[in-house]
Amino acid sequence: MKLKSNISITVLFSFIFFLMMSCNEKSLNGIDESTSDDIGHPSLILTKQGVKDIRANLGNIPIFDKTLAATQIEVDAEIENGFDVPTPKDYSGGYTHETHKKNYVLMQKAGALYQILNDDKYAQFVKDMLFEYAKQYPTWPIHPKPRSYARGKLFWQCLNDSNWLVYTSQAYDCIYDFLTEEERNTLETDLFRPFADHISKDSPQFFNRVHNHATWGNSAVGMIALAMDDAELLDRALNGVTDESFDPDEKDNDGGYIRKEGQKIGFYANVDEPFSPDGYFTEGPYYQRYASYPFLIFAQALQNKKPEHKVFEYKDGVLIKSVNALLNLSNAKGEFFLLNDAQKGMSYYNASLISTVDIGYHFGGNNPELLSIAKMQDEVTLDDAGLAVALGIKEGKEKPFVKKSIELSDGANGDEGAVGILRHDDLELVFKYTAHGLSHGHFDKLSFALFEAGEEVVQDYGMGRFVNIEQKGGGNYLKEGTTWAKQTIAHNTLVQNETSQFQGKYDIGSKFHSNRYVFSVEDENVKVASAKEDNAYPETKLHRTMVTIKDENYESPFILDILRVTSESANQYDLPFYFLGHIMQADFEYSKLNTPEILGKSDGYQHLYKEASASVKDGNIKLNWLLNNKFYTYSAVSNNKDEAIIGRIGATDPDFNLRNEQTLILRKKNVKNALFVSTIESHGTYNPVSELAVNAYSHIKNIEVVHDSKEYTAIQIDTKNDKSKVFIISNENNDKDKEHKLTINNKEYTWKGAYKLTENN
Amino acid sequence: MKLKSNISITVLFSFIFFLMMSCNEKSLNGIDESTSDDIGHPSLILTKQGVKDIRANLGNIPIFDKTLAATQIEVDAEIENGFDVPTPKDYSGGYTHETHKKNYVLMQKAGALYQILNDDKYAQFVKDMLFEYAKQYPTWPIHPKPRSYARGKLFWQCLNDSNWLVYTSQAYDCIYDFLTEEERNTLETDLFRPFADHISKDSPQFFNRVHNHATWGNSAVGMIALAMDDAELLDRALNGVTDESFDPDEKDNDGGYIRKEGQKIGFYANVDEPFSPDGYFTEGPYYQRYASYPFLIFAQALQNKKPEHKVFEYKDGVLIKSVNALLNLSNAKGEFFLLNDAQKGMSYYNASLISTVDIGYHFGGNNPELLSIAKMQDEVTLDDAGLAVALGIKEGKEKPFVKKSIELSDGANGDEGAVGILRHDDLELVFKYTAHGLSHGHFDKLSFALFEAGEEVVQDYGMGRFVNIEQKGGGNYLKEGTTWAKQTIAHNTLVQNETSQFQGKYDIGSKFHSNRYVFSVEDENVKVASAKEDNAYPETKLHRTMVTIKDENYESPFILDILRVTSESANQYDLPFYFLGHIMQADFEYSKLNTPEILGKSDGYQHLYKEASASVKDGNIKLNWLLNNKFYTYSAVSNNKDEAIIGRIGATDPDFNLRNEQTLILRKKNVKNALFVSTIESHGTYNPVSELAVNAYSHIKNIEVVHDSKEYTAIQIDTKNDKSKVFIISNENNDKDKEHKLTINNKEYTWKGAYKLTENN
Repeated sequence: MKLKSNISITVLFSFIFFLMMSCNEKSLNGIDESTSDDIGHPSLILTKQGVKDIRANLGNIPIFDKTLAATQIEVDAEIENGFDVPTPKDYSGGYTHETHKKNYVLMQKAGALYQILNDDKYAQFVKDMLFEYAKQYPTWPIHPKPRSYARGKLFWQCLNDSNWLVYTSQAYDCIYDFLTEEERNTLETDLFRPFADHISKDSPQFFNRVHNHATWGNSAVGMIALAMDDAELLDRALNGVTDESFDPDEKDNDGGYIRKEGQKIGFYANVDEPFSPDGYFTEGPYYQRYASYPFLIFAQALQNKKPEHKVFEYKDGVLIKSVNALLNLSNAKGEFFLLNDAQKGMSYYNASLISTVDIGYHFGGNNPELLSIAKMQDEVTLDDAGLAVALGIKEGKEKPFVKKSIELSDGANGDEGAVGILRHDDLELVFKYTAHGLSHGHFDKLSFALFEAGEEVVQDYGMGRFVNIEQKGGGNYLKEGTTWAKQTIAHNTLVQNETSQFQGKYDIGSKFHSNRYVFSVEDENVKVASAKEDNAYPETKLHRTMVTIKDENYESPFILDILRVTSESANQYDLPFYFLGHIMQADFEYSKLNTPEILGKSDGYQHLYKEASASVKDGNIKLNWLLNNKFYTYSAVSNNKDEAIIGRIGATDPDFNLRNEQTLILRKKNVKNALFVSTIESHGTYNPVSELAVNAYSHIKNIEVVHDSKEYTAIQIDTKNDKSKVFIISNENNDKDKEHKLTINNKEYTWKGAYKLTENN
Repeated sequence: MKLKSNISITVLFSFIFFLMMSCNEKSLNGIDESTSDDIGHPSLILTKQGVKDIRANLGNIPIFDKTLAATQIEVDAEIENGFDVPTPKDYSGGYTHETHKKNYVLMQKAGALYQILNDDKYAQFVKDMLFEYAKQYPTWPIHPKPRSYARGKLFWQCLNDSNWLVYTSQAYDCIYDFLTEEERNTLETDLFRPFADHISKDSPQFFNRVHNHATWGNSAVGMIALAMDDAELLDRALNGVTDESFDPDEKDNDGGYIRKEGQKIGFYANVDEPFSPDGYFTEGPYYQRYASYPFLIFAQALQNKKPEHKVFEYKDGVLIKSVNALLNLSNAKGEFFLLNDAQKGMSYYNASLISTVDIGYHFGGNNPELLSIAKMQDEVTLDDAGLAVALGIKEGKEKPFVKKSIELSDGANGDEGAVGILRHDDLELVFKYTAHGLSHGHFDKLSFALFEAGEEVVQDYGMGRFVNIEQKGGGNYLKEGTTWAKQTIAHNTLVQNETSQFQGKYDIGSKFHSNRYVFSVEDENVKVASAKEDNAYPETKLHRTMVTIKDENYESPFILDILRVTSESANQYDLPFYFLGHIMQADFEYSKLNTPEILGKSDGYQHLYKEASASVKDGNIKLNWLLNNKFYTYSAVSNNKDEAIIGRIGATDPDFNLRNEQTLILRKKNVKNALFVSTIESHGTYNPVSELAVNAYSHIKNIEVVHDSKEYTAIQIDTKNDKSKVFIISNENNDKDKEHKLTINNKEYTWKGAYKLTENN
């Protein structure tokens, strides 16, 4: 009896399962797969097989189920509210802009919901909206707002029109079979083709670039080409359009050149040029995050629909490598390092990174480390890639994403410098010796920033912009973005004669790049990144070496920074140090000015107040400060001709656009050669609840240059426990196998390779 | 068979239990309780019954077990290391100071461990250390450091000596029965009696005060009196000592008077005077936190040993009420509001609050809300009180500690003003209309601060001190504590003629207090705190009313602030507003100075830079800012004679001791009467990951004074949804039952009570 009962239940479940399966088969829009060679629709981000698999797993893939439920709630509410397709009129933040933006996101989501849930109301919603666009689009002139070098029709710039098409193409693909052929003809003729033409043929200054704008344009045209299966449009997307009117001197409204003469165009060119073989995107991670979506979403669609293109194998798999590179360019909290124009706080929790991570996982060999990122994101894309991730997580495959010390080369061929990241315990040092970074680049060769446990300690200022905060210049780039944020003095690197590197000129800066000299991170106790810059200032050569050193006697490693300047002429050299936090103590005698003075006239100096200054003595200067209840000390070798300036950002800032953080500038005047040597320590903590200060003072007793010649520079570091270390770097030979010998203070040092760290006791 | 087996197990467990109990009985130092009338030892914070109960519950009281395990690890390691009893020499932070401090904490813990774990090694450790002290103490002169008005012997001030004795008395009580009578005689004769004498009879200027110093002194003598069962010492603790040399003009090294002539002294006087009947401690919550430990630990000991004193019933149970008051004086994160001298970040996670909460629970009727605080603290005291809390938590009795809008009276009789706290959703407004707060008081009558979700939005600067951070003035009060932090201009309240209230003189300020006018929080949609101050400036009367108003159309409530100034003479009135965050937009035309100027000469003005100023127009001015990714707007009624000054803290600050935050000062010149009316809104959010700004602008269209007479002030607030509200306050009659009638713009308003809020549409 009991046995029989069990069997009955099994039979019943089998029957239900069979019914469900049949239902799923039938619900795939009634198409019998076996009768068609065409892979049909959907085929961009969702595939027929993907939809089948998703439906079969629903209810058993928690992260996917959760995303789906949230999306359904959101879209249902909007369907309930009804939609609007207003006549375009506003800039970002205005009603028509925000409404068209909302519309394309909704259509994309509704399309996916239709496929996954097989509920016609979602398809109907997309269809109704598309037909409203198809009715109105032909009647709209160019967008009335004039600011852009490439005006759109729905939006003030073609960039946003391209966003619209990238998303809407996915929706169209999802409801393709829901429409009659006649309906599809109407949409393609009245809306999609003219739309694609406007952002490509009619806007070659936008479409034919190597720039994140063009990436969006190319991908947009490519996506609709795939949805419509239009070979001509796909070719246009991949290879650009003929541009009769090309003028190499033309610039966009951000001041960037449209393109160089002879430069390749189209999607592949946009993969070729800004990505280095390591997957570093030359504009920096903030813009890589933005560009990542169109690159990868189109690559995904191309792979699904035209696998013969092998897009993910292009340039030795650089698109997949870029996912790993981008994640490595984030700090312990997942926030991207601030290289070039970048807003603080942007992180891998950004929506475009959900796609990036999911696509990277699905098409990049199912790297289990990506699952741990996806798990933190707590959301997946509602497509084949998202399903793969959800299944991976469900099956417990994830491994921690371990960010290691890493060098990421810059330049299409990986030979235009690099970003070097030294990681040690909670410390992350980001050292920049890249190319310029296109129009978003800053004039800050050999600058660095330091993070501890995801908090910025020695800062990069970031961009001069409050993105989408209308009160601040409409949310766009502020003039201080150019006059301050891009200038050299705004960074932790050398300024010669109060003039920015490359004269602050993009035309000059974009011709050059720094060069890696050493990047060596195998030894846990001493990690070295060293680079040279020969073009930032004529006649002057810069060589900076940054080292993390672990001293067994102290909890945290410390940073050693050696910046060697050699010139044919006498100059003033300023090295700013943008510590964040409150000064606890400076061990040198400074005099605070009664009221601050403006530090200089141009090149960013007009934005700095001088608050205090000091003529320092031979020896060391120390600055001890408190940030987030941690004590830090900066110690620098000083000589009695140096000047120390305590400055603050915020001068010549009529609209309070700047943040008012402090800096310490070490200034050497009227010298040809200079050697800046300093250490940075994170050495103690304060607890405002117990009111206990632990290790409030630096462990370093003295830093001294014990040798400095054309060939070698050697620094001795004495610590308070009466230990002493010497770090020597060969200035001219970075061969790993080269044997060196050097006598310092009657002691002979021998070693192999570009550098050596040795105990001195 | 099965049944029999069950019985066997029961029997076995009973037997084990019996053995354990017998063992416990025996282990209570072999004393047969029934043979003695004396309650014996331990009897201060642990009692014999308590020890028995603790031992019986060990392993089953997670929070207690965890605390015990951590304490055991800590003490075991120290026993292993050995101890030192160095000859006293240093100030705070120095070796001898920190070592004696560590010693008393360790003895207290080891004593408790001995009782709980019944392991002689802990008693031996305490005994050895005590005998070392007994050997050395008689040989030590007064402490060599001269800074204190009452120098100790172990420490530079009697205060720290008292700390030592409060803790050590507990240890002595715990090991009392472990010692022979002869050993006890040695300790009492050579150490405890002379120790108690030094901080009492020999230091009446310290012991005979109403001050947190004296509270520690009284409790110290009281604790050792109880441990030794010494009636004379107990009387001294409770009632003070005869002081032949009393000089009413004498001050301590912080500048506070020793005491007033005729003032009562001793422990009870210290309960009487600084605590209001509501349990508010007049120095403010930061110092209440510090004083709370000696008050409550001694009360606990007195209750345990001499219940006939009924100490917890004293002054209508004020010690228990003070626990509730103190917890209510913390923000959503548990950090104490900054009233008078206070360091930011101090919270109910401080160690002294563990005792406070546990004692409050055990002796205060087992209020289940306290259990939720204890659970967050994740630690209990290792005594009877801690056991009670651990059992309460284990039994799931805790309820959330709900902080409501509350008024806490100040003054021994509760008639010297109050602190009014208006809470509404995430907003917490703290309005101060208290007495001066003894020597830690600030000159800031009618000032306020605003918090949202535990983050300070409109700040009180706090104290001018970095407690225990040696780099900053040895961790002691900095001169800017007096020249800036205590001055009126450092607070969100009115300054007349650039002079602090009460001329910045403690002698004057401490004679007066503000008065509550209205405190009414029953209506969720409109909560009102209103107070008057008549003595801060001669001839000038201040009346400030702060209201939280919930508008059903907007998510967050907003604050309405009405400050009415009437004077017999023409004056300049400044009302500063210390918003924290970055200015997004000011809707008035200001001109930023090329370089900042110092705002004034004295009374704190010398510490403010003027960064920008504006002559404003009739109507409103608005300041919109961003803090922690939230948008706020301050809107103020302005007239064309007003000046607006954007200032920044940090002038005349040679050592960078001050934080450089901004302020907006509204200035009215050469007027007798003035009405400052403003609103504060928290209205929107920014997300740096999605880069979306939501509700970035104020909802308030206009604020207008529609009536202002001797009798009434009425404010109309128009919002952007075309709604309008009027708030009317009676300026002279705060009777709840009084009927009012007022015609404004031909519309008649009638209401009962001091104020009315009404829709105007």
